[in-house]
Amino acid sequence: MSHPYPVEPWCLREHGAPTESLRQVESLFALANGHIGIRGTLDEGDPRGMPGTYLNSLYELRELTYPEDAYGFPEASETVVNAPDATFVRLTVGDAALDVRTAGVHGHERVLDLREGTLTRSFEWAGVAVRSTRVVPFTRPAVAALRYEVRALDAAVTVRLDSDLLANEEQPEQRDDPRAATVLQRPLVPQRHLGEAAGGVLEHRTERSGIRLVSAVDHTVDGGATPPAVSTEAGPDRIRTTVTATLGPGETLTLVKVVAYSWSDAHDPGRLEHDARHDRDTALADGFDALLRDQRLHLDDFWRHADVELDGDPPVQQAVRFGLFHVLQAGDQSVPHPVPAKGLTGNGYDGHALWDTEAFVLPMLTYTHPDCAQYALRWRHGMLARARERATELRLAGAAFPWRTIGGHESSGYWPASTAALHVNADIADAVLRYAAATGDDAFVRECGEDLLIETARLWARVAHRGDDGAWHIDGVTGPDEYTAVVRDNLFTNLMAQRNLRGAAACASADPAEAARWREIADGMHVPYSAAKGVHEQHAGFTTLQEWDFDADDEYPLLLHHPYFELYRRQVVKQADVVLAMHLRGDAFSAAEKAANFAYYEARTVRDSSLSSPTQAILAAELGHLELAHDYLGEAALRDLQGDGEKSGDGLHIASLAGAWSALVMGFGGLRDHDGRLTFAPRLPSHLGRLRFAIRWRGARLRVTVTPREAAYETDGDRIDLHHHGEAVTVAAGAPVTLAIPPLPDPGPVPQAPPGLAPASRRAELAEAGDGGAAA
Amino acid sequence: MSHPYPVEPWCLREHGAPTESLRQVESLFALANGHIGIRGTLDEGDPRGMPGTYLNSLYELRELTYPEDAYGFPEASETVVNAPDATFVRLTVGDAALDVRTAGVHGHERVLDLREGTLTRSFEWAGVAVRSTRVVPFTRPAVAALRYEVRALDAAVTVRLDSDLLANEEQPEQRDDPRAATVLQRPLVPQRHLGEAAGGVLEHRTERSGIRLVSAVDHTVDGGATPPAVSTEAGPDRIRTTVTATLGPGETLTLVKVVAYSWSDAHDPGRLEHDARHDRDTALADGFDALLRDQRLHLDDFWRHADVELDGDPPVQQAVRFGLFHVLQAGDQSVPHPVPAKGLTGNGYDGHALWDTEAFVLPMLTYTHPDCAQYALRWRHGMLARARERATELRLAGAAFPWRTIGGHESSGYWPASTAALHVNADIADAVLRYAAATGDDAFVRECGEDLLIETARLWARVAHRGDDGAWHIDGVTGPDEYTAVVRDNLFTNLMAQRNLRGAAACASADPAEAARWREIADGMHVPYSAAKGVHEQHAGFTTLQEWDFDADDEYPLLLHHPYFELYRRQVVKQADVVLAMHLRGDAFSAAEKAANFAYYEARTVRDSSLSSPTQAILAAELGHLELAHDYLGEAALRDLQGDGEKSGDGLHIASLAGAWSALVMGFGGLRDHDGRLTFAPRLPSHLGRLRFAIRWRGARLRVTVTPREAAYETDGDRIDLHHHGEAVTVAAGAPVTLAIPPLPDPGPVPQAPPGLAPASRRAELAEAGDGGAAA
Repeated sequence: MSHPYPVEPWCLREHGAPTESLRQVESLFALANGHIGIRGTLDEGDPRGMPGTYLNSLYELRELTYPEDAYGFPEASETVVNAPDATFVRLTVGDAALDVRTAGVHGHERVLDLREGTLTRSFEWAGVAVRSTRVVPFTRPAVAALRYEVRALDAAVTVRLDSDLLANEEQPEQRDDPRAATVLQRPLVPQRHLGEAAGGVLEHRTERSGIRLVSAVDHTVDGGATPPAVSTEAGPDRIRTTVTATLGPGETLTLVKVVAYSWSDAHDPGRLEHDARHDRDTALADGFDALLRDQRLHLDDFWRHADVELDGDPPVQQAVRFGLFHVLQAGDQSVPHPVPAKGLTGNGYDGHALWDTEAFVLPMLTYTHPDCAQYALRWRHGMLARARERATELRLAGAAFPWRTIGGHESSGYWPASTAALHVNADIADAVLRYAAATGDDAFVRECGEDLLIETARLWARVAHRGDDGAWHIDGVTGPDEYTAVVRDNLFTNLMAQRNLRGAAACASADPAEAARWREIADGMHVPYSAAKGVHEQHAGFTTLQEWDFDADDEYPLLLHHPYFELYRRQVVKQADVVLAMHLRGDAFSAAEKAANFAYYEARTVRDSSLSSPTQAILAAELGHLELAHDYLGEAALRDLQGDGEKSGDGLHIASLAGAWSALVMGFGGLRDHDGRLTFAPRLPSHLGRLRFAIRWRGARLRVTVTPREAAYETDGDRIDLHHHGEAVTVAAGAPVTLAIPPLPDPGPVPQAPPGLAPASRRAELAEAGDGGAAA
Repeated sequence: MSHPYPVEPWCLREHGAPTESLRQVESLFALANGHIGIRGTLDEGDPRGMPGTYLNSLYELRELTYPEDAYGFPEASETVVNAPDATFVRLTVGDAALDVRTAGVHGHERVLDLREGTLTRSFEWAGVAVRSTRVVPFTRPAVAALRYEVRALDAAVTVRLDSDLLANEEQPEQRDDPRAATVLQRPLVPQRHLGEAAGGVLEHRTERSGIRLVSAVDHTVDGGATPPAVSTEAGPDRIRTTVTATLGPGETLTLVKVVAYSWSDAHDPGRLEHDARHDRDTALADGFDALLRDQRLHLDDFWRHADVELDGDPPVQQAVRFGLFHVLQAGDQSVPHPVPAKGLTGNGYDGHALWDTEAFVLPMLTYTHPDCAQYALRWRHGMLARARERATELRLAGAAFPWRTIGGHESSGYWPASTAALHVNADIADAVLRYAAATGDDAFVRECGEDLLIETARLWARVAHRGDDGAWHIDGVTGPDEYTAVVRDNLFTNLMAQRNLRGAAACASADPAEAARWREIADGMHVPYSAAKGVHEQHAGFTTLQEWDFDADDEYPLLLHHPYFELYRRQVVKQADVVLAMHLRGDAFSAAEKAANFAYYEARTVRDSSLSSPTQAILAAELGHLELAHDYLGEAALRDLQGDGEKSGDGLHIASLAGAWSALVMGFGGLRDHDGRLTFAPRLPSHLGRLRFAIRWRGARLRVTVTPREAAYETDGDRIDLHHHGEAVTVAAGAPVTLAIPPLPDPGPVPQAPPGLAPASRRAELAEAGDGGAAA
C-alpha cells in the first residue's frame, strides 16, 4: 500500500495540486470545531469532489418509504444538509482565472497542521505567490475564517478576488452504495438576504425540520499602494464580495474573511441574526492572528493531555495524531451536540450519530478531554423525551435510543439492524458510568447521568424475561455484528444490559423496589456458552450455525455480494462482537475464556466494519499477541490515510480513529476501568521502543511511559490509585512510580483471521520503509 | 354478526341498490374465468367502490425503493393494473340519467347465480324495466359479455344507452394498510384506437413490463318499432357506442355487448388484434344465449365433481358453494397462469400469487378440477428459469421460487417474510406430488413435475447443513407464521423440505448420487421438539420465547399495532404453522403428539391471517373436536360473505374459500393423501346431519356420503383402493360400500384459543336463526 503523504510527526502535507481522489482528500483536510465543519476543498471551488460545510444538528427531514411498510417503521430520516459555503475565494490575475489543472501552477502545497489547527496552502502562479490559511476556531463555535494572501513577484499585476458565501450549491452524484449519503438538493429555503459593504447576511430555513439559519460574512482587505476596490452583490443564495487591486512587485493583497453561523429550531430570526453578526464582527475585530493564537493555545492544552508518543512506527505515530486531531474536531463541543459517525468531515451515514459515539469515541474523549464527553452525553440526555416516546411507540418501557439520528428521532430504515440493536441503550449507560468514574462529576450524574441510567435500564427490565431455566433472557435483538440479526441472547447485549441494570440500581434516585428487580435481572442474566466448543456464543446457538465457506473466491464487504439471508444463517462475523464484549465487559471472562473466544471469533471475523480492528487490537494485546495487535492498530489508525479513498470520501471514520487511541492506550497500555477501578497492564510489541500517553483521572493528569521492560506512572494530582499488571499502586504528585513489566506468558499460537484477511503486517511495512524511508 | 344476503343454496342475492360497503360488494359479485375478471360494479359506473377489470398476467413493473437497500432486494414489483373496463352501460331515459342513489328506483335486485355463472340485475325506474346479465364465459378465455334490456312499461319513452370501453380509468384512494394494493395511475400507454360502426379496437402497452394489449368491443342492438340509432366515438382511451331508441309501451331495447382481450409480452400487435377481433366476432355471432348455455354446461360439469352438500347449516352450505364458484373463477385456466391470492376479484396484494395457491387452492382443484391444478403447476414450471436465476442471485442452488409474483420475479419488498420463506419451494413440490398421485398424469410428471421436484430439492440440499448433532438443519428461514421470522429449523419447513427431497429422489430423471444425498438429508432432517413442554416446536427454541401478554387490551391484527420486534420475540402465532405441518405432514406425528401440539398452539394463535382457520378446522376435526372444527369451518367459509368488508374490498380470500372445502372434505371427511395413499376418517359434528362430496381420483369420480353413523363410498371408475378409519377398502363401479363410523374416542378438553379469540359458534348462530331464519 503506498503512502501518498510524507511521514511527519505533526502534520499532513500534500505536495502538488490535488487531481484525484478529491473526495478523500477533502475529508482528510477538513477543518471543524464540533459545531462547524468545512471540507478541504480548494478556495477557488474547482476541481472539487464533494464540497460541504456542515453545521452540527442542521438537518432536514427526508421521507422514508417502504415497499412493505409496518408498524413502528420511522417515517422520516434526519439528514444532514449543506450549510452556505464560505470557502470560496476565486483568484483572477490579469484576465486569467486560477485553475490548478492548467499549466503554470508551481510549488503547490497544502498542510494540515495538527498543532496550529490550520489548513494552509501555498503556490506560485501567473507572477504571484499565494498563501491561504483556514481556521475553524475551537474557541469560537460559530465562526470560520480564512486569510488569502496574494503577493506580486517580479512585476506589477492586477488581481481580482471573488469571495462567495454560497447556499444550495449543486451537489455531485452519490456513489451507488447503501452506506453512502442521501443528498437533498436545494435543502435551504431562502428567507432574506442583505448586502453590506464587504459582506452581508443570508437567512434560510429548512422546509420540514423547521430549522432557521443565519449566515453572516464580512471581510477586511489590506495591501497594495492604492487601496483595493471592494464591492458586494447579494442574492437569495449568494453573497459575493469582489476585491480588485493592482499590486506592485513585492506588494501583498491580504483578504481576511470571517463567516459566522447561527442556527436553531427554537430561536427567532432576529436573535439568530444578532448572534451571527456579533460573532462575525468580534472575530473580525480581534483579527486573524488572534484566531490563530487562540487556536494554538487550545490545541497545546489538548495535546498536553491527549498526545500519544510512540517510538518505532512513524507512520502510525503520524496517523494517531491525525486521528486524535480529527476526533477533537468532531467532538469539541460547548453545547450538547451529537458526534456524527463521520464527524463534520462529510455527509456519510446522512450525518447520523450512532453507537460509535459512546462505544468508541467517548472512551478516548473521557480520558483526554472529558468536557467533550460530557456534552455528548448531555446531548443524549436532551433527546431523552424522544427516546421515551420511541419506547412507548415500540410498546416497550423507559427509553429506546435511536440507532441513527441527529435530532433524536430514529432515522434508520432497516429495523433488524437498528430498532433491534437495543444495545445502543447500554452503550450510552456504559459511557455514563465511565465518564462518572473517570471525572467524579457529580453534577452531571445528578442532572443527567441518573436519568440516562434509569431510563435505559427500564427498557431492559421490560424486554428481559425469565426463562424456564430460571435465567433472564433478552431475545430478538441485534448485537454489534450486523451479519447476524434479531437473535436470542446476544452475549454483548446481555452483558452490557447487565452493567446498565446494575448502574441504574446504584443510582441515588432509583426506586428501591425497581432497583431490586434490576439487580435480580442483572444477577440472573444468561450468558450463552457452548460447552461443546468451549467458547462463549455470540448469541444463543451461534456456534452451531453453518460455517461460512471461506474457500470461495469472495469479494468484500460481503454485504455487497451476498443477501442477508446467507449472512445471517452462518458463522460469519462482520465486526467484533464477543471480542468487544471481552473488552468492555472484560470483567466477565476468565483469561482462558478470552483466549479461546478470541481464537474462535478471529477465524470468523471479516472486518467489513471499520469498528472492528481497534477492538481486535485491544484483545490481541491483552492476550499477548502483540504483533497482531500492532497490525490491527495500524489498520485502525491508517484507515483513512492509506485506505480505500472511496470510503473516506464521504467523511472520515471517526470511531476508527478514536479506536486507534484505544488500541494504544487500552491495548499496549492495558488501561481498563471496570467498576470504576483504574488498571493497567502495559506491554509493547517488538517494534515499539516506547509508548507514552496521558489520561485525565478525576481532574488530574496521569502520564504513563511504557518501555519494553518497565512502565512509569506520574501525576500532577494528589493521589491516584491504580493497578499495574494486577499489583495495587498509588501514584502521587512528585512521586513517579516505575514498575517492571512481568515477562509475557506464552500466549499460544497466533489466532488466525479468515484466509486472505489477515491485517497488513506493520513489521513488513516498517522493514520495507527501511531506515530513511517512512521516517521523516 | 348480521347476514346481509338471504340464505339460498345456489345464489347470492342482493335486495335493493348497493349504497355501502361498495368495494366488498364488488368483490363478492365479481365474475371471472381464470383469464379475465370483472368486478361487480353497477353498469352505469356510479356509485362505485373500486372498479376493476383484470387480465391474468397483465402487470406493470413498479419500482421498489428501500430506505436502506441491500444485496438481493428486488428492484421492482410486478403489479396488477386495470385493463380497459367494458362494464359500462349508462342509461338515460328522457332527460334523466340513471343513478340508483336518487329516488324512483324500484325492486333493485342483483343475483350471482352459481349454476348459471351469471350476474343478473333487475329494477324498474322512470317507466322502464331494466334487466342486465353479465357473463365471463369459462369456455372463452378472452371474452366478457353483457346483455342490457330496457322494456318500456306503460308509456312510450326515449332511451339512450352509452356503452363504454374505458382505459386508464381514474382510481379511488387506497386504504392505509400495508396489505392493500399499490395502484398505478394511467398504467396503459395508448398505441392505437379504431372506431367501428358499433364498437372498435384499443391498443395499449405497459411502459416497463412490455406487455401489449388489444381490446376489441362490439355490440348488437335489437328492439323497438323503429330501428335504434347507433353511433360510435373512439379515442386513445375510450370507445363509446351510443344507442338511442324510442320504445312504445311493452317494447324492449336489447343491447348485447361483447369485449375480447388479447395480451402478451411476446406477440406482435397485429397478431393480438387478429385474435381479439376473432374472439369478439365469434362470440357475438354465436349470440348471448349460446354463451349462457355453454356457461351452464361447464358449471354443471364442475358441480357434478366439486359440489359439497351439507345438511344442517344452510349459511355455510351457501358460503361453501359461493367459495367453490369463486375458486373456480380464479383457477379455471386453459393456459398456464398464476392463481392470484385474490383471484381476479380485486387488486389486493398487488395481484400477486403466493404460496396460497399450492398450499390451499390446489388441493381443492386437484380433487375437483385437476386440469386447473395442472395449469397452475405448469405456470410454475414456466417460471422455473426465473426461479433458477433468483437462486443464483441469492448464492443458493436449484430454484428459489418467489414469494410474491405474477410473471415469476420476486416482488416482495420485505425479505424476512418473503425471501426467507423458502417453504414456498416445498409447497410447490407438495402440490406436484399430490397432483401426480391423484391423477396419475405421467405426461405432466415427465414434462414439468420432475423438473419442479428436482430444482426445488436442490435448494434444500444447498441450504440444509449437518450439525454437530449429526442431524440436518435449515436455518434462517421463515415458516408460515409471519409473527416469527428468520428462525432456525422451522418445523413446517423442515418436514415439507423432507417430503420435497424424497419426492425428488424418487424421480426417474434424478441423478442417483444426487438422489442418495437428498435421501440422506431427508432421513436426517431435524424435527424440533421440546421434551420439557411435551410438544413440537414451531422452530428451534420457540417454546422458550417469552409469552404474549393476552391480558392486554389488544387490537387485531397485531401487526398494525405492534412492531415486528415485539412480535418476533414472543410466543404469538399469526397463523397455523405447526398445525399446518400436522395437516400436510400428518404422517410425521403420532395422534398423541398432534393432540398436545394442537392444544399448545391453539392457545397462542391469533388468526391474523385468513389462511389459519381452515387448517385449524381440519386438525380440530381429526382430533375429535368436531364443534370447534365446525366453528372454524364457518369462519373460513363466511369470511368474505359475513366478514370485514374492508378486507374483502381488495378482493376475495380465495385460499380461505378453498380452505372451506378442505375443512369439510379433509376435516369432516378426513381425506388424507400421504405418500399418494387415499384415506378417509369421516365424522360429523352434531349439527350436520349429512355431508356429501366427491373427488376425482385417477380419472374416476369417488362420491362420499357421510351421515352420523356411517359413510358410503361409490365410484364410477373401475376400482379405488382407500382406507376408512384405518380399514382398507376397495370401491368398484356399481358396488358402493357403506361402512360404520367408529365411536369417537374421548378427545379430551376442547383446546382454547387466546382470550377473546375463540371462533364464532356455529351452534349459537344456527340456534339464533331458528327454524325459519337462516334457512331459505
